[in-house]
Amino acid sequence: MSHSFRVIKACPQTGGRAGELVTAHGIAPTPVFVPVGSQATIKTLDPADLKSLGVSMVLGNTYHLYLRPGIEVIKSLGGLHRFMGWPGPLLTDSGGYQIFSLAPLREVNEDGVRFRSHIDGSEHFLTPERAIQWQEELGTDIMMTLDECPAYGEEYAQVEKATRRTHRWAERCLRARRGRGPALYGIVQGGTSPELRRESADLISSLDFEGIAIGGLSLGEPKGVMWAVVRETVPHLPQAKPRYLMGVGSPEDLVEGIGMGIDIFDSALPTRVARNGALFTSRGRCNIRNARFREQAEPVEPGCTCYTCRTFSAAYLHHLFRCEELLAYRLATIHNLHFILRLMEKARGALLEGTFLDFQQRFLSSYEPTEEGVRLEQRQKGGRPREAL
Amino acid sequence: MSHSFRVIKACPQTGGRAGELVTAHGIAPTPVFVPVGSQATIKTLDPADLKSLGVSMVLGNTYHLYLRPGIEVIKSLGGLHRFMGWPGPLLTDSGGYQIFSLAPLREVNEDGVRFRSHIDGSEHFLTPERAIQWQEELGTDIMMTLDECPAYGEEYAQVEKATRRTHRWAERCLRARRGRGPALYGIVQGGTSPELRRESADLISSLDFEGIAIGGLSLGEPKGVMWAVVRETVPHLPQAKPRYLMGVGSPEDLVEGIGMGIDIFDSALPTRVARNGALFTSRGRCNIRNARFREQAEPVEPGCTCYTCRTFSAAYLHHLFRCEELLAYRLATIHNLHFILRLMEKARGALLEGTFLDFQQRFLSSYEPTEEGVRLEQRQKGGRPREAL
Repeated sequence: MSHSFRVIKACPQTGGRAGELVTAHGIAPTPVFVPVGSQATIKTLDPADLKSLGVSMVLGNTYHLYLRPGIEVIKSLGGLHRFMGWPGPLLTDSGGYQIFSLAPLREVNEDGVRFRSHIDGSEHFLTPERAIQWQEELGTDIMMTLDECPAYGEEYAQVEKATRRTHRWAERCLRARRGRGPALYGIVQGGTSPELRRESADLISSLDFEGIAIGGLSLGEPKGVMWAVVRETVPHLPQAKPRYLMGVGSPEDLVEGIGMGIDIFDSALPTRVARNGALFTSRGRCNIRNARFREQAEPVEPGCTCYTCRTFSAAYLHHLFRCEELLAYRLATIHNLHFILRLMEKARGALLEGTFLDFQQRFLSSYEPTEEGVRLEQRQKGGRPREAL
Repeated sequence: MSHSFRVIKACPQTGGRAGELVTAHGIAPTPVFVPVGSQATIKTLDPADLKSLGVSMVLGNTYHLYLRPGIEVIKSLGGLHRFMGWPGPLLTDSGGYQIFSLAPLREVNEDGVRFRSHIDGSEHFLTPERAIQWQEELGTDIMMTLDECPAYGEEYAQVEKATRRTHRWAERCLRARRGRGPALYGIVQGGTSPELRRESADLISSLDFEGIAIGGLSLGEPKGVMWAVVRETVPHLPQAKPRYLMGVGSPEDLVEGIGMGIDIFDSALPTRVARNGALFTSRGRCNIRNARFREQAEPVEPGCTCYTCRTFSAAYLHHLFRCEELLAYRLATIHNLHFILRLMEKARGALLEGTFLDFQQRFLSSYEPTEEGVRLEQRQKGGRPREAL
């Protein structure tokens, strides 16, 4: 197992830190944003695109890949890297989150979780041991423990029960590892309860994981609640291990999270909203379908160096979206991922130069976040994590 | 107007010829296949893809572009080349074919054709003069006359009337040109009648066009009927002008048509069937959704040098199609266009070397065409030219 992490520079004013994550398939400079390739593809993009964009790590969904094409198919074809043509660092989730948010029926007991496929209704059973086995068979670089992820608003007793089970499953995942395979990260749960989060952070931190994730957030709770949990949790995590905030990926949240000491983020948001025509600009999201772009000869974000903005007017992108041309989704995805990856680079640069607080304040004062109401409504419509389109 | 054409070498055994077509935006070696970018995009591909594939000319649909985003929008943005980011030779049709095949209501009189938009039902009027004006405003390199295109199976008297009107409209198109604009090609009509085809070929050939197209074919008639018409028509066309067979684009038809002396072909077929999972191989089309590809580690066509086959197993492509991942359509389109473009290169090479007949016979004996019944059924389902997806 070749996984290591080091903090290169910590911000004196915030919790932010610039670091480097070394995996068997290459290095990811941190803080790092990991785009989501649920079904062995970052939707609309190919590996050559990922390379030109400067993506350093990619996420695959064990749940999706187990259902289609099947873990054994990917294994027999040489593993997930080769299957999807991605030679770099690869992170997989355990499947737990998808089962709890996506499968139409599920039944949890101490052994594991029985669920039905959202595709054909077939019945399956996932245990902590299988989650590890499957991820090892995928040949990932970083695997995640199987956790029980309660919905936002669940009663305390339920959250407590799920959190304690998550801890026992975490230990089973550790015992299930076979030798020098992929790195394994534990997941902190605990809902919105400060006590449970502290308990979970302490317990997971005490185990022999290569990294620690904060799970169970970005599930529809208000932003203030999410950040309160992160703020409560981070001080209980070891300095020396990478910290991964699962499911977070809007520009403002990334900049916020970096300041709290998060090293790894994953989210389908930048690519999902791109396919709906929502493009990031330095001032906030814009909707390219809007009539004001109909004749705009400038690109969506003048000065942007992404392939889309270097090549096309906003009017052309507007036209493609109005015509529902498939190229629209690809060009918008390229723009949004470019925006996010450059934002991460700038944040890292500022951390290394010791100017992060200034960078953060400037960004958050000029970037107008999508209004909370719109955001929650879009989530419900969009249906995370089963992506539209 | 900078348009010229020269035949470099003619095949001594067939009618085939290798040539060179020079336009204001570059050179297309002939015979040339022109992929269809109806709405200012070859579906799923960007201009960088077209360049790496070696596409030398692209077709835009005046009808589609008139409806969306509007000719005046493209004109105000600097023309179609700049709008779609395509710097090379560009061919546009006149809109006539789409109106006759696509618009829900149309009414032809001597002046022009009144039609309803297939998008919003709005009413429009197209005349030969406007067809020229619109194409000039798009800034195309080669424009087409407005023709009246009768459906396959139309009565003789109707076809005769449409053919004669097409001739009068052709002369009006010539008169409507403004100075040194794009080249203008005339269109031969005449349905399946040898006499009308001869009359049309002679008439159109006598006018001052830079090239001659054979229209009104590939409309659902049996292949034998189509080739009989081409065989009847070509001898009546001038040797010195490029000959363009509209709407033809399956591998076997291209190889057949080249042997009859055709220089230019356009068709949405290679890209449309790609999006349905039908991929060209040296032995014929295969359906990548077929279960036999589920675990195939080799690419779809072993030895193929396209990006898709160099990078991915057939199993991966199969998986993407099964999951309806957008990347599937792009990778399949790249493969099919690569196949067609390499086929055209090989045919041209054989023409230059004087080995075309041998090449043609070898290709047609190893490539199994899609069965006629399947082909006609797919056409009805697919709805040409309004493309699926």
